[in-house]
Amino acid sequence: MPVGLDAPTKVHVIGGVRLATAAAGVRYQGREDLALIEIAAHSSVAAMFTQNKFCAAPVHIAKDHLNTSRPRYLVINSGNANAGTGDDGIKVALQVAQCVASEAKLTVEQVLPFSTGVIGEALDADKICKCVPNLMQSLSADHWIPAAQAIMTTDTVAKAFSEKIELANGAIHITGIAKGSGMIRPNMATMLAYIASDIEVDTDTIQVLLNNSVEHSFNAITVDGDTSTNDACVLIATGKSKLKYALLSADDKRQFEQGLTGLMQDLAQAIVRDGEGASKFVCVHVCDALTTDQASTVAFSVANSPLVKTALAASDPNWGRIMAAVGYAQDENLQLATAKLHINGLSVWQNGRLAPEYNEAAGKTAMAPEEITIKISLGLGSAEKSVWTTDLTHEYIRINAEYRT
Amino acid sequence: MPVGLDAPTKVHVIGGVRLATAAAGVRYQGREDLALIEIAAHSSVAAMFTQNKFCAAPVHIAKDHLNTSRPRYLVINSGNANAGTGDDGIKVALQVAQCVASEAKLTVEQVLPFSTGVIGEALDADKICKCVPNLMQSLSADHWIPAAQAIMTTDTVAKAFSEKIELANGAIHITGIAKGSGMIRPNMATMLAYIASDIEVDTDTIQVLLNNSVEHSFNAITVDGDTSTNDACVLIATGKSKLKYALLSADDKRQFEQGLTGLMQDLAQAIVRDGEGASKFVCVHVCDALTTDQASTVAFSVANSPLVKTALAASDPNWGRIMAAVGYAQDENLQLATAKLHINGLSVWQNGRLAPEYNEAAGKTAMAPEEITIKISLGLGSAEKSVWTTDLTHEYIRINAEYRT
Repeated sequence: MPVGLDAPTKVHVIGGVRLATAAAGVRYQGREDLALIEIAAHSSVAAMFTQNKFCAAPVHIAKDHLNTSRPRYLVINSGNANAGTGDDGIKVALQVAQCVASEAKLTVEQVLPFSTGVIGEALDADKICKCVPNLMQSLSADHWIPAAQAIMTTDTVAKAFSEKIELANGAIHITGIAKGSGMIRPNMATMLAYIASDIEVDTDTIQVLLNNSVEHSFNAITVDGDTSTNDACVLIATGKSKLKYALLSADDKRQFEQGLTGLMQDLAQAIVRDGEGASKFVCVHVCDALTTDQASTVAFSVANSPLVKTALAASDPNWGRIMAAVGYAQDENLQLATAKLHINGLSVWQNGRLAPEYNEAAGKTAMAPEEITIKISLGLGSAEKSVWTTDLTHEYIRINAEYRT
Repeated sequence: MPVGLDAPTKVHVIGGVRLATAAAGVRYQGREDLALIEIAAHSSVAAMFTQNKFCAAPVHIAKDHLNTSRPRYLVINSGNANAGTGDDGIKVALQVAQCVASEAKLTVEQVLPFSTGVIGEALDADKICKCVPNLMQSLSADHWIPAAQAIMTTDTVAKAFSEKIELANGAIHITGIAKGSGMIRPNMATMLAYIASDIEVDTDTIQVLLNNSVEHSFNAITVDGDTSTNDACVLIATGKSKLKYALLSADDKRQFEQGLTGLMQDLAQAIVRDGEGASKFVCVHVCDALTTDQASTVAFSVANSPLVKTALAASDPNWGRIMAAVGYAQDENLQLATAKLHINGLSVWQNGRLAPEYNEAAGKTAMAPEEITIKISLGLGSAEKSVWTTDLTHEYIRINAEYRT
């Protein structure tokens, strides 16, 4: 059961984007596992990919194609990651892209393939290709939520969010879908995300917008510290609203950027809320740091600690483990004499010792809710960083020991 | 149940070292939880301590005392770490050291205090001090194994190893004890280790010997990636054998150093074998790397991956997760085209794809034993590193969610 996250029911359509889904039977039976996203001509598209050097065949192909053409179609399968599949895997990814290109009468470079699922098994391109003609026929602006469902792997709920942003000269819409629930950590963990807006943006600017928003969303979450082979985050701007980003006022630009980052944070946090075996949703907020890097190092040190995460699973106010994880963060300027710790607003640690108002009963009360904020003030400067994570539970072990069986 | 590890039955006495134990009732009832180690005058002592900046009160005191005097007594309690206890904790650690010093008619600086157990609770010095007179009376060269038992926390078995090394002009003995089973990762994780030899070594050289051996033993193990607040490793050379290290032949020096490193590896591996919830003992051996740093980065990336560790728990030959963990190791010179993977001798991955002789059945057979060697050849150079770890099991979660209750 995800923590504080319901299935999506309705999202805004985005002019210039149509979607379709099918049950290709790649691995799963009785559910859809294939999504096609059509992007109108002249749209701008940016993407970020996994930094894992053992990256999957479709990542290689999608990167190459994005460098040479403006993408018109994204084709995504779940159930098989086409990773660790060598030259054969590259051929399969190209075959899938070529099949979509032929059906749409485009070049293969205008199609980006994506895969997610089990690593190291051969992906059968034919299963996907035989669905392509029907996919083309069933494209619809309304199919965001079925697409969010089709790309799920160990997810227990589909992830889709949508925003309408009123600007001075009209409204902009943003809609995004994502999948992911394990192997999550910064640098694009096992997740796929596709976000589209009807704003008009040039191709250089859209990459900057994507990078900035990813920094505060998908690169600020961690479930288990593992970075996957297949992650990708794609941002599409179709321009169908006729509102040009370059011509917006500074206020309107900021409003759009905040809306985009907010939506990507919703998607990223949804991945954490649906984290494998998660029973808690945890924000680690480090403030008053010397630098953002220092804040980030400390925040991830706490957020990735198995001992902190097992204590969270038990609702145990084991502040000693939190302070120990702060203490071993790899930052040479770190010193703890000025550090303060709050758990859900309760003052726990200050001046090198337990806060006078802290007691075990108050600690247990603070740790009881499903949503926990661990706030660590370093008292060294003014930089800050928030990251989001889950607890580490029996269910995580069960899921990951049984995933292939 | 530890993996391939039995309780110790007999070790060599070390001339110049006597030990005693008592049940101080610090936290545990019905067992001994206090150990005193007496070191003969003129012995050399070296120590390494946790690098955690949130280090415990006794660590501060032991470091200070070691800098000013030759230690004559080590006093160690289990059950309470005296960590996160502020200025009061410092007073308690000093009070314990002073009590031993007074009883032995020495200065407080000649006593090093150590604590291990729960973080953040006040340690009652009186419980320890009232045992000191009897401890002094019951010191014996034979009490290594009771001492190993007294310092246990979540350990399920005592850890003690012993070696007799025959050199050209006589025999040297080395005996060591250790505790630890969770919060284990390099840089001195939650472990205490005390190793003594009857060799004669000067105080500068003994520190070099200790540093070198720790690098290949206690700094090459990881259970959960957490570094504790209290770790310490102490090496004692009493000189009672009358054999001087400085006068040994190059061959004899090497033999002694190999014996010392081997014994410390036995102790370090025993901690992993008794790792919290461990059902496997795993060696990750990275070879043909450009540098030792690169080999170490890759080895720890694999050894700390929760996805690899849950697959190990399930005896699942999920080589994709292993290669993915290699792929996200933070080393900019890493490239995977030349990488090879063997699991317990079975060739799994080479030339960018599965090895021709690999199949799932062979993989399952290779992953079935309790002891697993994951060998990763990077094909880039000639450096190598071995690290030792365990799998990640339901039992780990149970132990760490319940430890304080």
